[in-house]
Amino acid sequence: MFTINENYGKLPGSYLFSNIAKKVNAYTAAYPDADIIRLGIGDVTRPLAPSVIKAMHEAVDEMGNAATFHGYGPEQGYDFLKEKIVAYDFAPRGVKLDLDEVFVSDGAKSDCGNIGDILGLDNVVAVCDPVYPVYVDTNAMAGRAGNYGSDERWDRLIYMPCTAENQFTPDLPQGKVPDVIYLCYPNNPTGAMITYEGLKKWVDYANEHGSLILYDSAYVAFISEDKPHSIYEIDGAKKCAIEFRSFSKTAGFTGTRCAYTVVPKELQCGGVSLNALWLRRQTTKFNGVPYIVQKGAAAIYSEQGQKEIRETIDYYRNNAKTIREGLTAAGFTVYGGVNAPYIWMKTPDNMTSWEFFDTLLHKAQVVGTPGSGFGPSGEGYFRLTAFGTYENTVRAIERIKQVF
Amino acid sequence: MFTINENYGKLPGSYLFSNIAKKVNAYTAAYPDADIIRLGIGDVTRPLAPSVIKAMHEAVDEMGNAATFHGYGPEQGYDFLKEKIVAYDFAPRGVKLDLDEVFVSDGAKSDCGNIGDILGLDNVVAVCDPVYPVYVDTNAMAGRAGNYGSDERWDRLIYMPCTAENQFTPDLPQGKVPDVIYLCYPNNPTGAMITYEGLKKWVDYANEHGSLILYDSAYVAFISEDKPHSIYEIDGAKKCAIEFRSFSKTAGFTGTRCAYTVVPKELQCGGVSLNALWLRRQTTKFNGVPYIVQKGAAAIYSEQGQKEIRETIDYYRNNAKTIREGLTAAGFTVYGGVNAPYIWMKTPDNMTSWEFFDTLLHKAQVVGTPGSGFGPSGEGYFRLTAFGTYENTVRAIERIKQVF
Repeated sequence: MFTINENYGKLPGSYLFSNIAKKVNAYTAAYPDADIIRLGIGDVTRPLAPSVIKAMHEAVDEMGNAATFHGYGPEQGYDFLKEKIVAYDFAPRGVKLDLDEVFVSDGAKSDCGNIGDILGLDNVVAVCDPVYPVYVDTNAMAGRAGNYGSDERWDRLIYMPCTAENQFTPDLPQGKVPDVIYLCYPNNPTGAMITYEGLKKWVDYANEHGSLILYDSAYVAFISEDKPHSIYEIDGAKKCAIEFRSFSKTAGFTGTRCAYTVVPKELQCGGVSLNALWLRRQTTKFNGVPYIVQKGAAAIYSEQGQKEIRETIDYYRNNAKTIREGLTAAGFTVYGGVNAPYIWMKTPDNMTSWEFFDTLLHKAQVVGTPGSGFGPSGEGYFRLTAFGTYENTVRAIERIKQVF
Repeated sequence: MFTINENYGKLPGSYLFSNIAKKVNAYTAAYPDADIIRLGIGDVTRPLAPSVIKAMHEAVDEMGNAATFHGYGPEQGYDFLKEKIVAYDFAPRGVKLDLDEVFVSDGAKSDCGNIGDILGLDNVVAVCDPVYPVYVDTNAMAGRAGNYGSDERWDRLIYMPCTAENQFTPDLPQGKVPDVIYLCYPNNPTGAMITYEGLKKWVDYANEHGSLILYDSAYVAFISEDKPHSIYEIDGAKKCAIEFRSFSKTAGFTGTRCAYTVVPKELQCGGVSLNALWLRRQTTKFNGVPYIVQKGAAAIYSEQGQKEIRETIDYYRNNAKTIREGLTAAGFTVYGGVNAPYIWMKTPDNMTSWEFFDTLLHKAQVVGTPGSGFGPSGEGYFRLTAFGTYENTVRAIERIKQVF
């Protein structure tokens, strides 16, 4: 008799966004004419850049012609894209990468999940709290998280609270040393950013203790201050860190699907190269990103492409500023939104995250995401995203101001 | 100190196609003017169908316009594609599927590898010999294969020999009962096809013993005889089987990336639905296939699209016929090629697979794949593919005839 992976049975259910949908649906059923503004889910709304559209049209035509048709490409991505990544995303920051240290993929979510394939099941994993749920759930599925308790925590995970007191950047672990540490900057959900000094502490800690840092910088395009764009800007990071990047937020690729992961060749465990392991994983379980999509991604690195994606990022940044300044002026305590598309607000009057959600939905017809959905330390916070239209963003803030 | 997945260290190295490349490179270095014909790797060469090209151009334009832009789609695929799959690939064969039993993905290779995520590590796995290496390698990576011995076998896998004597369809296991059984029809690499009766034996066996069948029908488009296209044409299969399909060979999507996996809701293990587990896996570790690609895949189901992809399949089929009949006329013993794009030939004069490879390269400048690369029982066989151009296929056969 075959068996299933019993760890799946321990998962508490992924209720955050389905609960939000249920509440919104119930409200619209009761008030069919309600004009609801959604600033909840972190999905983009602006179209792909003209340069990307042009490149993809050309690539589609290539695929329709036997002389220029592309079948299987390299699982780890075409050099034409990896050359741009290395030259534009890293070299200007003083980070030198070889092409075979970059692995193009269909998404940072896939890579953040699949990276566990090459790691031992005995690793003790540390995550921020609040946190992007994929880090937790994928480790729970693999068995590394242990069991889920009535305190809404997994008993084998180390939770690192991120609060206003520590600027939403966790303190170094004082007790048990984690083997694997997930860090995400610019941060989802808190919108916080880390400093060079702050990140250096983590790299030094990891190298001293033999920990592996899994660094998610999917929101790097939103950094506006003098902050590290890549963990490899910190000396020693190539010996202890894997970095995840994505075109989803940088170039609006959430429905187009392209990302990449950097696994430096210096990163070793007992003499074994993690780069070689990931190459083996990807060549065995993955067949690469569509040629058309890689051509589209490469187009953002042209002069015109860079200009176009910057305009879109600026559009979202302006939304973030509108939310941040509007809510601050209205008396709310607000974090994030400077180096990230996420605004992390303290709920007023000690409301719980869900109480505030309900109030905002019913009184302002604005939908956001309850902070408690991202972890116990998110209770009492609320996430708004800058990915809506400018008009809706302005209207949402006006409504919130009127209610409170 | 973090640890890696030690199972990767047991993998013997994936030398088949790199060894082929090395030998071909050495030959071309010595004979720069050699006109080499490649019938080795199973990659298509014909362009995408005009209907697909048209649909993808339209979808690219949608992505460039805010009003029609698509961000995150459902991880398991858009209904517009799943409706076509259910209506065209299954309903005409008498198989009724609900939309939520179909999971669109970026490749059958990904799904065949990732499906292991939802299965217990203690399952005993049976594979055909010879076999598509991904089934073996992904189980080895998860630890289910045990250790690799000097006999070139993993000690926890059950190998089911597929030979001319059993028409390359394995006999039911007589000893230890496998928990998970991989079957692939039309078969890669042997080109064999299974009968309704033959497949019914496996479904009955699986239901009787509580085994799970992982059924790979990536080459279904090449079936020309009255044979099962889906395992669900067999009564009871929904209780014991997962089926993998792909647009790679059906519609030339090897570089465009789209596939799907069927997990029937009737398929349970101890009351747990595998459909629910796979949904959880995909929503947690995957973000769906590009909207543009799904639009392209859906276009093959239009009347015109069906006509176009059939023409391409017929082109490859004619290549297969050319190889099969040409080699047979030349006195070779040849299998496959009737319901599959692969021709599986017995090497002449008791040559080993690699000896025949070398001879063919040096004397005929034709590249194929040594059968021994697919497993011990592939020794003495050789795989040729029908995916080349017609002109090259004819020339390759002429050359082989002249040499032998």
